[in-house]
Amino acid sequence: MIRHAIPLALLAAATPASAQQPAAPAARTRAAPPAVTVDPRVAALRDKALGDDVAYAITEGLTTEIGQRGTGGSAAQARAREWGVAKLKALGFRNVRIEPYTLPNVWERGVETAEVAAPYPQALRLTALGNSGATPAAGLTAPVAFFATLNDLLAVPAGSLTGRIAFVSNTMEPTQDGSSYGSAGAARFVGPNIAAQKGAAAIVIRSIGTDHGRGPHAGSTNFAPGVTPIPAAALSVADAENLERMVKLGRPVTLKLVLTPRFVGPRQSGNVVAEVPGTDRDAGIVLVGGHLDSWELGTGAIDDASGLGITTAAARLVMEAGRPRRTIRVVWFGDEEIGGFGGQEYARAHVGERHATASESDFGADRVWRVETSLPDAARPVADRLAAALAPLGIVRGTGTGGDGTDIGPVIRTGVAGVDLNQSGLRYFDVHHTPEDTLDRVDPAQLRQNVAAWTTMLAIVANAPEEIGPVPVRP
Amino acid sequence: MIRHAIPLALLAAATPASAQQPAAPAARTRAAPPAVTVDPRVAALRDKALGDDVAYAITEGLTTEIGQRGTGGSAAQARAREWGVAKLKALGFRNVRIEPYTLPNVWERGVETAEVAAPYPQALRLTALGNSGATPAAGLTAPVAFFATLNDLLAVPAGSLTGRIAFVSNTMEPTQDGSSYGSAGAARFVGPNIAAQKGAAAIVIRSIGTDHGRGPHAGSTNFAPGVTPIPAAALSVADAENLERMVKLGRPVTLKLVLTPRFVGPRQSGNVVAEVPGTDRDAGIVLVGGHLDSWELGTGAIDDASGLGITTAAARLVMEAGRPRRTIRVVWFGDEEIGGFGGQEYARAHVGERHATASESDFGADRVWRVETSLPDAARPVADRLAAALAPLGIVRGTGTGGDGTDIGPVIRTGVAGVDLNQSGLRYFDVHHTPEDTLDRVDPAQLRQNVAAWTTMLAIVANAPEEIGPVPVRP
Repeated sequence: MIRHAIPLALLAAATPASAQQPAAPAARTRAAPPAVTVDPRVAALRDKALGDDVAYAITEGLTTEIGQRGTGGSAAQARAREWGVAKLKALGFRNVRIEPYTLPNVWERGVETAEVAAPYPQALRLTALGNSGATPAAGLTAPVAFFATLNDLLAVPAGSLTGRIAFVSNTMEPTQDGSSYGSAGAARFVGPNIAAQKGAAAIVIRSIGTDHGRGPHAGSTNFAPGVTPIPAAALSVADAENLERMVKLGRPVTLKLVLTPRFVGPRQSGNVVAEVPGTDRDAGIVLVGGHLDSWELGTGAIDDASGLGITTAAARLVMEAGRPRRTIRVVWFGDEEIGGFGGQEYARAHVGERHATASESDFGADRVWRVETSLPDAARPVADRLAAALAPLGIVRGTGTGGDGTDIGPVIRTGVAGVDLNQSGLRYFDVHHTPEDTLDRVDPAQLRQNVAAWTTMLAIVANAPEEIGPVPVRP
Repeated sequence: MIRHAIPLALLAAATPASAQQPAAPAARTRAAPPAVTVDPRVAALRDKALGDDVAYAITEGLTTEIGQRGTGGSAAQARAREWGVAKLKALGFRNVRIEPYTLPNVWERGVETAEVAAPYPQALRLTALGNSGATPAAGLTAPVAFFATLNDLLAVPAGSLTGRIAFVSNTMEPTQDGSSYGSAGAARFVGPNIAAQKGAAAIVIRSIGTDHGRGPHAGSTNFAPGVTPIPAAALSVADAENLERMVKLGRPVTLKLVLTPRFVGPRQSGNVVAEVPGTDRDAGIVLVGGHLDSWELGTGAIDDASGLGITTAAARLVMEAGRPRRTIRVVWFGDEEIGGFGGQEYARAHVGERHATASESDFGADRVWRVETSLPDAARPVADRLAAALAPLGIVRGTGTGGDGTDIGPVIRTGVAGVDLNQSGLRYFDVHHTPEDTLDRVDPAQLRQNVAAWTTMLAIVANAPEEIGPVPVRP
């Protein structure tokens, strides 16, 4: 357990922002920013949220009373939906319901073991990637073809990997904005498809993670149409480092893999939906949420019980402060991990409804450090008020745009503005998708800072008198 | 990976001790310690050792080329012995050999899975304790009887646990001297025997560890003669914390355990022995070493490849500095984890030989912080020189006695003096006996400080002109 507590100075700074003065003009070159008035009721609600424990209670409840909530329509996910309905009703939300959908063909994990067959016989720890093909039940034994990076794999000729197990071992360093997941993660996202196209019998990758532990990082991959899936798995970082040391000793290394995942056909699943009804039906819905499913190695505390806790706790605080202008809709999306099915089904089911904004919390439980939006120009004052009200929480206004997230993506792509509260990724990928994603990884102080940020956002956006959206769809 | 590097100031302080002045008299009450001359050759060797990488090379080799070295006469342990013989010969040791012995009846791990059957169905992670009994192959399902501490288990009447799974969940905090292992560890050492005597169907304990991770801590337990072993296992700390939260919700909790270890009969195993021959055959052997086997969940980097590396590297440095007075014998003991068999067999095989001192390194790879000995009064100057020469490495002279260790215990109990170089236990039990005991946990800088301490000790003890021992046997 590594805890990075919020500096006390930061919490102390969370006094009502209305009491703050605009900054003095900087010497010579920089103009003072325009003064923005923060509604004292918003500031008070934000500060109250720093003492709220509903988010932790939801995170603790889901990880204790349900535990692993396997992606892909699992029975545990169904229990979690029922738990969620009861919890959301108990918290006072309206129109609480399950919106069911059918998953067309569910991928299910099987046996997953690996060993070095020669020259250094020993067991290795790995986990199959989502959508991986299977080895024979008795296993597949083949020599390793080592690639230090994905680029090295891309460089070898087609057919050169026939009868071999590709091993891509690129490293990943932590980044606050999570951007290293995109670059390092390519080995998982597209590596298996590339290896299959080049004739590999299977592929193992170094887990996409910033730790050095034995827990492999799960995650999905995809094969292009017409490409037959090959067995594809992630070694724990420690095991990948060990295998790399073996390769570098210079003798040929042979692996035996047993991976028996399979597709088991259609399954029922669903999203859980709850609302804080607004006073103005025409102003558009403010959509927030996270996802209910988890990779089954851990109990999904940071991915993503905490996201459900954060968004739900914030919506409840705004609800208790009085009926907002816009309806706030909280969605606990299903089956995000294996393909974003819950988000797609939500967008399909609600295609006729106007959404003002969409936001998701799905990057752990560490503190929010940045706010970015894709609000239209007409709603620029909303973004300004947001930035001013969030600043006392140590949150900077980014220069990029908003609308990121697997679950809100399908709604965003219909021309809805995104409002993103970015969490620190500096330790997220230590435990992301591993057995170590458990409750003790959640720092209650940082979780409360998240709730304060989301409460602030909802209080401002849901009550904004300005029109919000639609916005042009980004390519 | 968490690394506590040695402060630079400490390394900088490792200048030749001969250049140091005795401390100035303290005000009023404290007398200055007597000046002790440290041989400049010893000081030079100590400082040279701070740049030695043989210990790391041995640790890396054993964990990479062999990996898990299962306790109990495993094939991997046999490969490790052959690896050790080749390595020790290559390093220039003399009389390198395997001393074989037979293990009478080996306990072997089987399937080990657990789940909460009701009311919160989910998988839990655990590992069977060494010498555990077995459940039926289909598993054992029974209600949990929760005990916050071992004392609570001791307090319930005999027969009160019939048909139940005892769950002892005492916590453990880090201590520099490792003493919390003794107190917290009692739940593992004697808890299963007590639970069996009170009629329990099985027992699970919270792992004896200071982490909060998902890797269970293995380790052995023992049942008294006449007590039928029950299934006994350690839950990972994170899983134990989760199960405890479930229990505290107030509803009866039922566990299903599948644990199928078994005794497989006798097996061949052995110790690896190497020597630096001394000039004086009558002065007694200076015995040092660690153990070659490991619990098979990890690759045994800190437990105990590093101990082999440290003691071997130190003996080699002394050997290269010139033939010592006393023979230094390095032993890589077998099968320590499951009952200290290698140490017992060594003492039996060498009962006729005079040993001057015995020392083992089996507490990880973090820095030595204390030296303690059970040297006889006549050899008090040896202890004084040792303390003075070790001080520049940040090592204090303890007020206790020496001779601790499973492997040297049988020799110590014949009246041999112990010289203990105690390593910091502040993070040892984070990974002790878990899957996480891998090479990346070894901090090369702290490992080198160990080598310097052991080199200093061997240079002083093996060359001491004083007679050493025998000493009275402690009760």
